[in-house]
Amino acid sequence: MRILYAVPGPMDRKELDRRVAMLRSWAAPGTEVDIVCASEGPASIESMYEEYLSIPAAMKLIYAAQADGYHAAILGCAGDPGLDAAREITDTLLVVGPGQTSFQVAAMLGHRFSVLTIEDSMIASSYELAYKAGVQAKLASVVSVNIPVLELATNRAASMEKIAAAGHLAVERDRADVLVLGCMSMGFLDVAKEIEAAVGVPVVNPSLTGLKVAEALVGSSLMHSKAAFATPPKLKSGKVTDLDDLYIRL
Amino acid sequence: MRILYAVPGPMDRKELDRRVAMLRSWAAPGTEVDIVCASEGPASIESMYEEYLSIPAAMKLIYAAQADGYHAAILGCAGDPGLDAAREITDTLLVVGPGQTSFQVAAMLGHRFSVLTIEDSMIASSYELAYKAGVQAKLASVVSVNIPVLELATNRAASMEKIAAAGHLAVERDRADVLVLGCMSMGFLDVAKEIEAAVGVPVVNPSLTGLKVAEALVGSSLMHSKAAFATPPKLKSGKVTDLDDLYIRL
Amino acid sequence: MRILYAVPGPMDRKELDRRVAMLRSWAAPGTEVDIVCASEGPASIESMYEEYLSIPAAMKLIYAAQADGYHAAILGCAGDPGLDAAREITDTLLVVGPGQTSFQVAAMLGHRFSVLTIEDSMIASSYELAYKAGVQAKLASVVSVNIPVLELATNRAASMEKIAAAGHLAVERDRADVLVLGCMSMGFLDVAKEIEAAVGVPVVNPSLTGLKVAEALVGSSLMHSKAAFATPPKLKSGKVTDLDDLYIRL
Amino acid sequence: MRILYAVPGPMDRKELDRRVAMLRSWAAPGTEVDIVCASEGPASIESMYEEYLSIPAAMKLIYAAQADGYHAAILGCAGDPGLDAAREITDTLLVVGPGQTSFQVAAMLGHRFSVLTIEDSMIASSYELAYKAGVQAKLASVVSVNIPVLELATNRAASMEKIAAAGHLAVERDRADVLVLGCMSMGFLDVAKEIEAAVGVPVVNPSLTGLKVAEALVGSSLMHSKAAFATPPKLKSGKVTDLDDLYIRL
Amino acid sequence: MRILYAVPGPMDRKELDRRVAMLRSWAAPGTEVDIVCASEGPASIESMYEEYLSIPAAMKLIYAAQADGYHAAILGCAGDPGLDAAREITDTLLVVGPGQTSFQVAAMLGHRFSVLTIEDSMIASSYELAYKAGVQAKLASVVSVNIPVLELATNRAASMEKIAAAGHLAVERDRADVLVLGCMSMGFLDVAKEIEAAVGVPVVNPSLTGLKVAEALVGSSLMHSKAAFATPPKLKSGKVTDLDDLYIRL
Amino acid sequence: MRILYAVPGPMDRKELDRRVAMLRSWAAPGTEVDIVCASEGPASIESMYEEYLSIPAAMKLIYAAQADGYHAAILGCAGDPGLDAAREITDTLLVVGPGQTSFQVAAMLGHRFSVLTIEDSMIASSYELAYKAGVQAKLASVVSVNIPVLELATNRAASMEKIAAAGHLAVERDRADVLVLGCMSMGFLDVAKEIEAAVGVPVVNPSLTGLKVAEALVGSSLMHSKAAFATPPKLKSGKVTDLDDLYIRL
Repeated sequence: MRILYAVPGPMDRKELDRRVAMLRSWAAPGTEVDIVCASEGPASIESMYEEYLSIPAAMKLIYAAQADGYHAAILGCAGDPGLDAAREITDTLLVVGPGQTSFQVAAMLGHRFSVLTIEDSMIASSYELAYKAGVQAKLASVVSVNIPVLELATNRAASMEKIAAAGHLAVERDRADVLVLGCMSMGFLDVAKEIEAAVGVPVVNPSLTGLKVAEALVGSSLMHSKAAFATPPKLKSGKVTDLDDLYIRL
Repeated sequence: MRILYAVPGPMDRKELDRRVAMLRSWAAPGTEVDIVCASEGPASIESMYEEYLSIPAAMKLIYAAQADGYHAAILGCAGDPGLDAAREITDTLLVVGPGQTSFQVAAMLGHRFSVLTIEDSMIASSYELAYKAGVQAKLASVVSVNIPVLELATNRAASMEKIAAAGHLAVERDRADVLVLGCMSMGFLDVAKEIEAAVGVPVVNPSLTGLKVAEALVGSSLMHSKAAFATPPKLKSGKVTDLDDLYIRL
Repeated sequence: MRILYAVPGPMDRKELDRRVAMLRSWAAPGTEVDIVCASEGPASIESMYEEYLSIPAAMKLIYAAQADGYHAAILGCAGDPGLDAAREITDTLLVVGPGQTSFQVAAMLGHRFSVLTIEDSMIASSYELAYKAGVQAKLASVVSVNIPVLELATNRAASMEKIAAAGHLAVERDRADVLVLGCMSMGFLDVAKEIEAAVGVPVVNPSLTGLKVAEALVGSSLMHSKAAFATPPKLKSGKVTDLDDLYIRL
Repeated sequence: MRILYAVPGPMDRKELDRRVAMLRSWAAPGTEVDIVCASEGPASIESMYEEYLSIPAAMKLIYAAQADGYHAAILGCAGDPGLDAAREITDTLLVVGPGQTSFQVAAMLGHRFSVLTIEDSMIASSYELAYKAGVQAKLASVVSVNIPVLELATNRAASMEKIAAAGHLAVERDRADVLVLGCMSMGFLDVAKEIEAAVGVPVVNPSLTGLKVAEALVGSSLMHSKAAFATPPKLKSGKVTDLDDLYIRL
Repeated sequence: MRILYAVPGPMDRKELDRRVAMLRSWAAPGTEVDIVCASEGPASIESMYEEYLSIPAAMKLIYAAQADGYHAAILGCAGDPGLDAAREITDTLLVVGPGQTSFQVAAMLGHRFSVLTIEDSMIASSYELAYKAGVQAKLASVVSVNIPVLELATNRAASMEKIAAAGHLAVERDRADVLVLGCMSMGFLDVAKEIEAAVGVPVVNPSLTGLKVAEALVGSSLMHSKAAFATPPKLKSGKVTDLDDLYIRL
Repeated sequence: MRILYAVPGPMDRKELDRRVAMLRSWAAPGTEVDIVCASEGPASIESMYEEYLSIPAAMKLIYAAQADGYHAAILGCAGDPGLDAAREITDTLLVVGPGQTSFQVAAMLGHRFSVLTIEDSMIASSYELAYKAGVQAKLASVVSVNIPVLELATNRAASMEKIAAAGHLAVERDRADVLVLGCMSMGFLDVAKEIEAAVGVPVVNPSLTGLKVAEALVGSSLMHSKAAFATPPKLKSGKVTDLDDLYIRL
């Protein structure tokens, strides 16, 4: 099985290598994982504005991945930017959004889950993601740890403490019995087990869980529904044969 | 009061002129309406993929409109592409999405409304729009008229008939008591009153209603909430001063 | 455009004059606003009991306003007493309830709104109003300022302080990002802008917004749906021709 | 136990006698049932307008019933006109609304219930009643039998047939497994058992069930919550001592 | 009318006698109440595991009660273990679950109710019960008093204090205006009136209310819906004639 | 990784062997799958009564599986009988319910899913399962194929036709874009791919998907939440050390 992890923005080679190494260490025997990043896009995603900025270039990665014969692609951002669009333009490549997937996995494990997000500016979009995932009924709360994405890894201990504090708040105030790390950078910080030990409830790591669910869906021969994510009419009709043809200039 | 109608993609001058003339004929005394289109983007919006494609260029129009002193901007697509992002990057310019606004106005007029959309491929996103607007509780159904956007105006009589048939279905099968035209091209076809006469329930035209609500909100000195649509951290901190600085290339 | 502001109970001439002057100062060019009050009814509305008491006489004002050729009537109480009945007995006069309208406008501006109500005894009915408006999904909370209606204006500074405190509570505890003043007397106290400055989120004034939305709906040629608010069968059949004929005595 | 059945409008003596005889035949040993009607009000209730018209006079019956030492009062209309107000002005007399009560009893018996209402003009208010009762989650549909209240009893066989047809529709199309007769005149037509036999699902008769639930609640020493239905501030403060004092004239 | 109170597990004779004496003291004239317990099952029910353990033996009591000609049976546990199964295997015996019934009665009395449960381990199942009862919309919260069932009666004063404290919390923090005792052992402690006096809102006692509602439903000639609770196909087809025949051994 | 598939009732050796062979053919490299059935219980599960009958013996299988060092157990019935109880009595063995899991996986693939169930008698419990899974918001409908479990495999072609017809109905009438086979016997009939081809939307097979999700969760080091599924107090306190000790006899 071949899975592509597609980062929706520029990322330096070293970090790409670190991430793909973690993904490969998590992969089941027989799963081949590659990583790629868009050559242009936002430096990091901390707002809806930056989410949207990232989509056009990321979609080209997805479209190319299907042509390249990958079985699944994972969007490399827990906001799942452009997930519906990615599914519209594919029909043999399964596209997985690690955000929605993590929420759905949290729903498998308990009655109420809370999302730990990076900054206050991303709280509203986490609620929206729970709506899209269909699991709003189990969402206890979204709590921000208030650490900018790009500073998350620079002081791991301080980040850990803030994340655990947010987790405690979710459990005690909001009666969460499962937590979800709401950001891929938190995911690749690889702190889920530590937070789990500190807070006492399961912690879903979107980086890991996105991969394992992609494997499970491909292993179940399941594809996202084309009745739900219809191919854009202009593509379907064959009037255009390349994504670039859908974008025109005056 | 100065209002800008911002079309999120290339549009020919003649159609721009026709639309702005209609908008000006609807405007209250004292309201000045301008129109502008993005110089690049999708030819028309019939999928989420094309919605996302339209956002980056459209956001630049919005950002410039604020700098230019406009009081309000109306996104020229009933899918409200990038509405949350547009509100994140503005704080003196009110941004109105005609889709959500029309749904909320429909909620003002009756108990249950249906949306008449262009193609099956846009049904799912209309439900999502009702969620974002907060009026899901009154959404009776979304019914597709199955006419491609670009063919809507070419045979007005045939389009009218299909739209009225969809309206009848919504009223009889789904108990809708208000209808919303779910597309700006339907709006500028100026058929709301005819559909209203044919079907017997109020029909909300997003082209007209988007403008009147923009006037009402500016006239009420109301701005979208910055607590809901926070300025992107990188912009807020002053680290970047231009939208282009948020977009990097490897 | 002719709009009538109909106060559902006796009010002294001076206060009527003060209110209509404010309304006229807010009106768009071309809008003519009149005010009228019922000659009998409750002294003020602080309970559902008093809301119901106010309806029969207020409905006569509405029925007469239609006969008189007004384009719209605004119910002069944010509880929207009898709004559905008022819409049942009219078909050329648009009836606007400032309570529901303000909630719907709040939904246009953010993700979650709170209502600041006058007394604990009105909290439950504010939740019901949000249900009727179809925007329950965005209602964060209803917070009482605990000032009797008739004392609200006697000490403006103290009232302001209590209102701002309730607003802060809504924003911090309940994550509201928009506030609604839940009472017309609060509205005509004209404190929205001060509260907005104090609390930092948009504040919807039902007195002002009710008027601006009435203008917007009439300007959109929209009427409340008669499929939703059917004319009472006895009126429709022509068996009775006057409202008084619907009321009999043993 | 003393229970008063309070008809919210004028009714002729013969019909009052017929109804109270039925109620007494249903009453448990030890329950004393009386009937009273308002001396003025609507001839029948087929719209929200008429519901509101009936409230002021009906409330006086309720207030007097408490002074008179009754344990419970049943509003004699399945629309429960003014139920919240009636509960605001009482604290030793339990007030039961037969509409909401029947919906709650239907929720006790199955998974999904449908309401059979009299006319299309009352459908919307039945949905609202389910919201107030808190059992919206189990409401399958509201189906109108389209017989005017005052004609219901004149041709019992024809009425029966229409009611059964509406019941079949609810069961087959809307998957209802319990039915509720949505009108007291249907209730006193005493057709529940026949409809039950014809359609094959339990049928809740509000006339009978309203009485039995009143007995059960009084027998459980339960009163409606004053925390939910607060006494109007002017009454509570003792500033007024009579309902009439809450109603003023210019 | 003959009603059986069926305890789903072994209980000593003295406690059975005490409980049936209370039930008989509450019964209406003409109601005959008996009590029976299963000869095997859990010692007490403090988990879903123990609820399920209790069901097979309890169902035999229910099946026998129908054969014995009882009009109604009340499950002797506020978790309503196996209520749906009990209704599947009966069609002339009404089966009442005191848990769901109490929630529905609470919905009759106010806007928001809270459930006081015995231990944290039963909180989740109380939310599920509210879903089954169809009254989730009015559930304010579930608060645990943290007293093991079997210790509840040993120190009545201490239990009372903890229950009242939980009630105060529900009213003040969660805006409950009605309380429900979420356990039959609490019910037979007979503390509802004391809690009501201490906290100031109505308190529903499932032991008492289960009985009074059973009387009301039988008195209304209402049976649970067989369209909702279908007879198991093997029983319906007549292939098996005894419950034991549905249970096979390898 | 060691996974146990636990059938909650007696099953003949040949069918056990057939099922475990299919499971092993689906398992990832490194996953060892065993199968076991309860030595007593219902012949098949077509009602809630039979679901409950199956739980006590099935729980012993689960408890023993944990002692035996399995990493996960899958309940062998798509009604997930006793899932919450199974999770209460385990803390190192992950328990997966194939019903809820399939619903959650369906939520991953589209906007609306329908469940194809075996008999009308199981429709209500499928809705309840969607509530427990937290994905009610995406449940389009439950459609019965009306084939008794034990006859499903005897005429595969006829069964296939009925299942496909139910699938078409769900897609066309209820707008489902994903289907779930609501029964393990349907799952092991191995018809998902054929139905998918016939109906044109993804079909989730609970037999296969239950296994793949168990692998994914174990591979993610995730366990069901003990904060959600608390160990029964008597077990936790150490007062009893064996499941049998929780069951007493008079």
